[in-house]
Amino acid sequence: MLGPGKADLLERIRETGSISAAGRTMSMSYKRAWSLVESMNKAFRDPLVESTRGGPNGGGARLTEAGEAVLAHYRKLQDIMAEAGAARIGTLRAMLRDVPEEK
Amino acid sequence: MLGPGKADLLERIRETGSISAAGRTMSMSYKRAWSLVESMNKAFRDPLVESTRGGPNGGGARLTEAGEAVLAHYRKLQDIMAEAGAARIGTLRAMLRDVPEEK
Repeated sequence: MLGPGKADLLERIRETGSISAAGRTMSMSYKRAWSLVESMNKAFRDPLVESTRGGPNGGGARLTEAGEAVLAHYRKLQDIMAEAGAARIGTLRAMLRDVPEEK
Repeated sequence: MLGPGKADLLERIRETGSISAAGRTMSMSYKRAWSLVESMNKAFRDPLVESTRGGPNGGGARLTEAGEAVLAHYRKLQDIMAEAGAARIGTLRAMLRDVPEEK
């Protein structure tokens, strides 16, 4: 339903106010960004992104109330999972050749 | 370091005893399956997959002790994260248009 890429896209749309600008910050084509937004808008009961076409800047976009809620739940979910899995992730990291720095 | 795809590939290698057969069960090309195995073998201190080339069946492959350990840790991590995130995942699912069946 939602993965890290789509969640990041939602966040960038909130930041940039534009689907295409949001996609650009993720090196994503306009078409790809729109297609992800459409699939999210279809998948959820209420659309997550509201967009207006046209205007001097090619229209704008913003997260709906549902979009804000979904993004917040997803970020919280990521936090919860990272915290719950920390010990096990540490064990796996320690088996890596070059242990990556903590993010 | 490891995601669901690579973990599944490790599991299929254990089941099939072959990198190419494992890849086939995931609709993955021989080249792709080998490349994923090589990247895992390089990323971890000890190789995860041991392979023998040649022979009537084109060689075989099996998980090393490190491979078994990494796969077990990863599956446990998935369980821990799914359990910890269950309530939040439920909230997100409930916002979907067509709520998917529980897996």
